Amino acid sequence: MDAQDHQSPPSQPPHLRQVLVLRPPPVFAVHEQYISNKFHILKAYESPLPTRDFLQANAQSVKAVLCSGSGPITADVLRDLPALEIVVSTTTGVNHIDMAECRRRGIRVTNVGDLFSDDVADVAVGLLIDVMRRISGGDRFVRGGRWPVTGLYPLGSKLGGKRIGIVGLGNIGSRVASRLEAMGCIVSYTSRLRKHSTPFTFYPDVHQLATDSDALVLCCALTNDTRHMINNKVMKALGKNGVIVNVARGAVINEADLVKCLEDGEIAGAGLDVYENEPNVPKQLLGLDNVVVLPHCSAFTKECFEDAAQIVVGNLEAFFTNKPLITPVTNDF
Amino acid sequence: MDAQDHQSPPSQPPHLRQVLVLRPPPVFAVHEQYISNKFHILKAYESPLPTRDFLQANAQSVKAVLCSGSGPITADVLRDLPALEIVVSTTTGVNHIDMAECRRRGIRVTNVGDLFSDDVADVAVGLLIDVMRRISGGDRFVRGGRWPVTGLYPLGSKLGGKRIGIVGLGNIGSRVASRLEAMGCIVSYTSRLRKHSTPFTFYPDVHQLATDSDALVLCCALTNDTRHMINNKVMKALGKNGVIVNVARGAVINEADLVKCLEDGEIAGAGLDVYENEPNVPKQLLGLDNVVVLPHCSAFTKECFEDAAQIVVGNLEAFFTNKPLITPVTNDF
Repeated sequence: MDAQDHQSPPSQPPHLRQVLVLRPPPVFAVHEQYISNKFHILKAYESPLPTRDFLQANAQSVKAVLCSGSGPITADVLRDLPALEIVVSTTTGVNHIDMAECRRRGIRVTNVGDLFSDDVADVAVGLLIDVMRRISGGDRFVRGGRWPVTGLYPLGSKLGGKRIGIVGLGNIGSRVASRLEAMGCIVSYTSRLRKHSTPFTFYPDVHQLATDSDALVLCCALTNDTRHMINNKVMKALGKNGVIVNVARGAVINEADLVKCLEDGEIAGAGLDVYENEPNVPKQLLGLDNVVVLPHCSAFTKECFEDAAQIVVGNLEAFFTNKPLITPVTNDF
Repeated sequence: MDAQDHQSPPSQPPHLRQVLVLRPPPVFAVHEQYISNKFHILKAYESPLPTRDFLQANAQSVKAVLCSGSGPITADVLRDLPALEIVVSTTTGVNHIDMAECRRRGIRVTNVGDLFSDDVADVAVGLLIDVMRRISGGDRFVRGGRWPVTGLYPLGSKLGGKRIGIVGLGNIGSRVASRLEAMGCIVSYTSRLRKHSTPFTFYPDVHQLATDSDALVLCCALTNDTRHMINNKVMKALGKNGVIVNVARGAVINEADLVKCLEDGEIAGAGLDVYENEPNVPKQLLGLDNVVVLPHCSAFTKECFEDAAQIVVGNLEAFFTNKPLITPVTNDF
């Protein structure tokens, strides 16, 4: 018992370096003990103080913050932390961080690199199969006792030979592409820049890509250029048999347009892991049988979370010991 | 209107060749008009007579029968059809046909060849992703309004690097293998015979394959050798983190053992498209969150059904005009 108490002290030793957490990222929630053994975690979310007061109380000492999309690092937060030198995110995307302000202040930012790419690509493919082949709908059909009563389950749509447009052919998009090729799909893409190393057809314009595709798989970063890029016009170009899968960020889609297009049959279905106002999902989606709605879990595997906790700790240790960061984000936002 | 009436006569012209249907196969149900325009369909299932009386009333004239698993062609049925010369199945598997009796009588059998293989392989992969990454469970979580309340969704299991054992490396199994390779899985297999053309590790014994695998994907034919092959012992060898996907036939698994192993946590989860007594699914499965239950729809795509209807018609036309059958089944049962 004594030995265990020494390994896992109930209170954090005061000599550990301080790391601020505004809201607990999922990776931190799962691996809190491992991370807390390495750093002195300042938990704003457990303080009786309002967040702003808590930040101001620690303003002079906080050099590092650990975050994810659940607790955005806005210009206001940054203003309250004048000593901040690094923002460590447990995610790949950094759209929850005011990157322009970080750049101006010289605050460094790390993500987890492409650690999640394979797992996110697997879920993108799983969502596409699910919507086109009606898998979770079929599961509801059987669980609801409808099979013996109704008989024939509605036919789905074959994946082989379908034209799939990938929006954003980065670490995730290129992994989605190779998986879909193995299923006999015909892959095209749009991206900020043409990728000369891939054999896939490049479309400079998402509207034209949608016109020529049976499904779109969204894998791009959320930026000012991509916000609400998938709107009513793009969905109508995709057409009544078209499917949209989103494993990027919710705001890449205009959600009001998506709801209307799904309700009106302007597109055939959607597989969504992300939403504009998580954890809130437009309630109109929840009654639709041709939609699959996941709770932003495309990177949620035991293996990934363990690796992510190690990268987070590695970046913080590198920062505090003046060594090169493991996965710095190039801040060209 | 007149022209349309001529194309689709309300009653079938008597000069068309007779084809008996005991119970309507799904492909027939969807493409009844197309098939009925080519043949005079004797519908046992619409007759007021008991099936046996209906068969005996048509015993001397019926040379061809169209079937699927929903209406087995048993020794009893064959005995009542002394003039029968061909059994045309809308399926790939022919376990619903008494092949030994067909062989003895010289009755020919056709299936639809490997028409469904890509679509079935897609669903096998979809089920594996779904169970390991908790997709339909995640959809229930969001639809049930639990995300904003519960917060963190349970972590799934990464596919990359996992050892997947394929049971039956035929047309479907080999397509599953190539899809899983693109996802970074390590594929092994068991099969009646070692396939020298594949790079995958062969296991002569399913128990050893299970011991060395993180998941089993069942793609084999149902035969006397494979019936109830996946039993309690094999599942325990697979282990507490193991997953089973079945797109073969329900009776390849001992369902009572499967239910018990799932309830007791002896395996981690299952993705099932097929059951021993369809359309009845063991009701204990319907309450489990780590199970995905589909209504035997792995081949249910519009594209496949159209192709299958053409193959069925092609085989029947070939038979009635003494031409070579398109997709005969080699009867070595």
